[in-house]
Amino acid sequence: VPQPTVSFIGLGLMGRPMCHNLLKAGFPLVVWNRTASRADSLVSAGARLAASAKEAAAAADILITIVSDPPALEEVLWGSNANSGGAFASLKKGATYMDSSTVSPALARKIAQASAARGIRFLDAPVTGGTWGAEKGELLFMIGGEAADLEAARPVLSAMGKKIFHLGPNGAGQTIKLAMNLLLALEVDAFAEALALVTGAGFAGEKLTEVMQASMARSGVLDVKAPVMLKGDYTPSFPLRLMHKDLSLALDLGNQIGVPLPATAAARETYSSVKGSSKEDLDYAAVFKFWKK
Amino acid sequence: VPQPTVSFIGLGLMGRPMCHNLLKAGFPLVVWNRTASRADSLVSAGARLAASAKEAAAAADILITIVSDPPALEEVLWGSNANSGGAFASLKKGATYMDSSTVSPALARKIAQASAARGIRFLDAPVTGGTWGAEKGELLFMIGGEAADLEAARPVLSAMGKKIFHLGPNGAGQTIKLAMNLLLALEVDAFAEALALVTGAGFAGEKLTEVMQASMARSGVLDVKAPVMLKGDYTPSFPLRLMHKDLSLALDLGNQIGVPLPATAAARETYSSVKGSSKEDLDYAAVFKFWKK
Amino acid sequence: VPQPTVSFIGLGLMGRPMCHNLLKAGFPLVVWNRTASRADSLVSAGARLAASAKEAAAAADILITIVSDPPALEEVLWGSNANSGGAFASLKKGATYMDSSTVSPALARKIAQASAARGIRFLDAPVTGGTWGAEKGELLFMIGGEAADLEAARPVLSAMGKKIFHLGPNGAGQTIKLAMNLLLALEVDAFAEALALVTGAGFAGEKLTEVMQASMARSGVLDVKAPVMLKGDYTPSFPLRLMHKDLSLALDLGNQIGVPLPATAAARETYSSVKGSSKEDLDYAAVFKFWKK
Amino acid sequence: VPQPTVSFIGLGLMGRPMCHNLLKAGFPLVVWNRTASRADSLVSAGARLAASAKEAAAAADILITIVSDPPALEEVLWGSNANSGGAFASLKKGATYMDSSTVSPALARKIAQASAARGIRFLDAPVTGGTWGAEKGELLFMIGGEAADLEAARPVLSAMGKKIFHLGPNGAGQTIKLAMNLLLALEVDAFAEALALVTGAGFAGEKLTEVMQASMARSGVLDVKAPVMLKGDYTPSFPLRLMHKDLSLALDLGNQIGVPLPATAAARETYSSVKGSSKEDLDYAAVFKFWKK
Repeated sequence: VPQPTVSFIGLGLMGRPMCHNLLKAGFPLVVWNRTASRADSLVSAGARLAASAKEAAAAADILITIVSDPPALEEVLWGSNANSGGAFASLKKGATYMDSSTVSPALARKIAQASAARGIRFLDAPVTGGTWGAEKGELLFMIGGEAADLEAARPVLSAMGKKIFHLGPNGAGQTIKLAMNLLLALEVDAFAEALALVTGAGFAGEKLTEVMQASMARSGVLDVKAPVMLKGDYTPSFPLRLMHKDLSLALDLGNQIGVPLPATAAARETYSSVKGSSKEDLDYAAVFKFWKK
Repeated sequence: VPQPTVSFIGLGLMGRPMCHNLLKAGFPLVVWNRTASRADSLVSAGARLAASAKEAAAAADILITIVSDPPALEEVLWGSNANSGGAFASLKKGATYMDSSTVSPALARKIAQASAARGIRFLDAPVTGGTWGAEKGELLFMIGGEAADLEAARPVLSAMGKKIFHLGPNGAGQTIKLAMNLLLALEVDAFAEALALVTGAGFAGEKLTEVMQASMARSGVLDVKAPVMLKGDYTPSFPLRLMHKDLSLALDLGNQIGVPLPATAAARETYSSVKGSSKEDLDYAAVFKFWKK
Repeated sequence: VPQPTVSFIGLGLMGRPMCHNLLKAGFPLVVWNRTASRADSLVSAGARLAASAKEAAAAADILITIVSDPPALEEVLWGSNANSGGAFASLKKGATYMDSSTVSPALARKIAQASAARGIRFLDAPVTGGTWGAEKGELLFMIGGEAADLEAARPVLSAMGKKIFHLGPNGAGQTIKLAMNLLLALEVDAFAEALALVTGAGFAGEKLTEVMQASMARSGVLDVKAPVMLKGDYTPSFPLRLMHKDLSLALDLGNQIGVPLPATAAARETYSSVKGSSKEDLDYAAVFKFWKK
Repeated sequence: VPQPTVSFIGLGLMGRPMCHNLLKAGFPLVVWNRTASRADSLVSAGARLAASAKEAAAAADILITIVSDPPALEEVLWGSNANSGGAFASLKKGATYMDSSTVSPALARKIAQASAARGIRFLDAPVTGGTWGAEKGELLFMIGGEAADLEAARPVLSAMGKKIFHLGPNGAGQTIKLAMNLLLALEVDAFAEALALVTGAGFAGEKLTEVMQASMARSGVLDVKAPVMLKGDYTPSFPLRLMHKDLSLALDLGNQIGVPLPATAAARETYSSVKGSSKEDLDYAAVFKFWKK
């Protein structure tokens, strides 16, 4: 049985290493990105660069997209630009389409509906694990959609990630992704508040980190971000502007369904303040800069 | 060399198992508690029950207190009640006094000043680790005070805990304890918000827990509290009313020094709401009830 | 000089009385509404009912729209539905278009750009004053756009409102409208918090109202809403779901430009909670129900 | 019938003009203040300066206190300092004691209990109206206590204020005072957020003020504070540190009784941030500096 052709749109910090893993696993790969030069290393490794998003979609047995936000995804799928838009209409009947961007559950369901109408199998499949996980092929996929469609796509997913969770019908993947990023953003913001309190009171932040790491509060994300906040080196691993966007999507969802999220709302304003006063692109641990102005 | 006599005031969920560990380690132990019957098992195991807080303090080479809040501690130390008050004045010159309650850093410093004036060696020594840690002798101590005084008290501390952190001068222990409880309270509240969002959107909370435990957001406290929230069984391990009190102390500190804590402030109101609408004593994971009303 | 023909799209609680005032002032009036029956009283009074939004727009020297939210406005202007969409393309060159909906400043600027490209004079012209002001012809208009275009439209505006503020270029009207609704929503939410505190402490809410009305805190909106909250009769004057939407637009704007709005964010979650737990359509004073659950 | 002797403790921005009005109304007046020189103008106008707080209290038919916060009041009433403390024990049986400080309802009730035990008639009688109202004799008094005691004190109250509200038993005055200051603080903070949004979006703050003053959002306090924020001249009329303290007292009350106050909690942190970063004493309208850092 020949491997299915995978097309991949969006070659950012996550997309590029995911593509390299698909190539390593032997999948024929067609790629497209707004800035074509980001495809160079992939083309060298055997990928074919499509001339447009549409052409990439047309070639796909399985299409994967991972772009920065809902408007970017809508543009790729339904936009009128001949180069960057219109991918959805080019998908073959029977193709699988998997979106790994983080977008609203409402958009995931809108895509699901349009897919059902055209005989396309859609999975909302956002990821977590960062660039490190993308490079190692150890991403965690949160998937909404039909179990059978997930099973069909599993070999492709397994090339990119180690943990593949089927969470419910379409929209479930994005809902739980937003909840997970809410949780990560609040853990980091909570540590920033704790650190601001301790240092503001005149004590060493290192002591707080030391105790935290010996306590029940220890978490994977704090092991990574606490030292970053102490050093103040905010080279982006996961950019603050994207975390801020995900918090906004989580709050939009909560407000649509009437579920109040008071601490998330408070934290989002703190992230917003730092976003507003920073010129460079910073990691989301830079939320601690709120107290450094 | 004979073991020093340890006196212990406050035989609650934490104090009693701590005392049993002191007895096991061979320390002569004098205990006192407002409700005397809580000392029964300790007396059976060899402790002496003092007739008053004052008498307990007078007998101590090392006095340890662990009571529920700042007013309770002030009453024990300086109150005029012949039975429950006046312990501080009864301490011998040269004695060590270690307070393991969670109180304000300001109160810790007030005690430190009074101790210095009387030749008493004071350590603020709040703990974390819960009743489980207290029983196993695996508490984590956060200590403010002189390094030499901590070294002198180390054998006693080691009978009760495995991790003993010297964090700075008096007040450092309480400051970092408040920051740690802020962090724990916000991690749990953040998970509650994530869970409210996921279940409010119609998906299974178990799925969120499963993903969380495979992710960077996993933490010791969430491993314990997430299942509690899913089941809704809030038998108190650490009571919500005490966590609420600690958040209030953290906010008081932040407001005294002008360090804003927006997410903590938001979360404290959520805990307050649950405290106000609950008649029984609940674990602080019951913050999730905010969304269940 | 004959009066210019005014076309009016959106015959809700505000639109209908505004139209009656235009008729009284002698303007030829063409109206359209999704539910045509809402035009009956206007047709009886001399208005012409257009067959579609497009037809209404085509007839206009001055087009006015007032619909419930940004998606509804985008649908009217650019939607593909033959009945309800496509109004923008039907506007004559040289026509004036005035939008009195509350939408994002970004959408106002998008319309302004599209208008400039087609030789249409656009004013963003949201209103405040409620149904009472709409009926009396005493609305307050907050206008963004060219001063000359406002002057040309003044006779039409004056038929509907008494206070006409020119606030800056396109977008200024919507920006200040969002800020004003933020202010009104927070004044009402602040009174609700004050009332919850007083009644929760066991005292009479009427006493708070009495003192408030004799104090510097008295405001027009509280004179109206305080008695409503005491009585608990939340017949919608300005519906909570629309105030919630406007708070969301204000927060979206703040988050886009990096201006933190902590109290607004907190209040929005409170409004959201009431929206989520209410089945009927309630006035925004019903935010007080947050404390009544 | 000779006029009763009034003793007055606390000659700050409010106390001094209140005393001048008492003198004008013909009351024999005994005054005391920590800094004695603040009594000079009163002594010139006929007041007697007591040598201690105790002596002032002993001379009183009616004692009035107005100090900055609960600890200051406890010190005056029950402190052991021979000069500044111990006033309560010196009060004559049958005297009336009226506290016009802003303190917790709990402290008001503690004083009420102690007063009942000693045959003293106690009113909690906090004021609003600012230095302007104090000078003009147009303060608003919020009174908790027995109606008969208020009637007996009415001539004294009327010398200082025009609006005298009997709100309930002891504690009612302080409760409603805290609710009123919560409301004023949030109105001002809400306007600051609105102004930050408008100016952050690039529009003129003056335009917002102009529209606000023509709208239902207009309030006495905003008429005064909006121009102050536009100018950035924060000469204290009501100092931010005192408003911050009152917000803290309101939040303490809410948290004791389990009434969540989310917007108040958010605003308090904003005030706290400005308090923490300001060296001078500023008016509470300076909360707008939060966005100017």
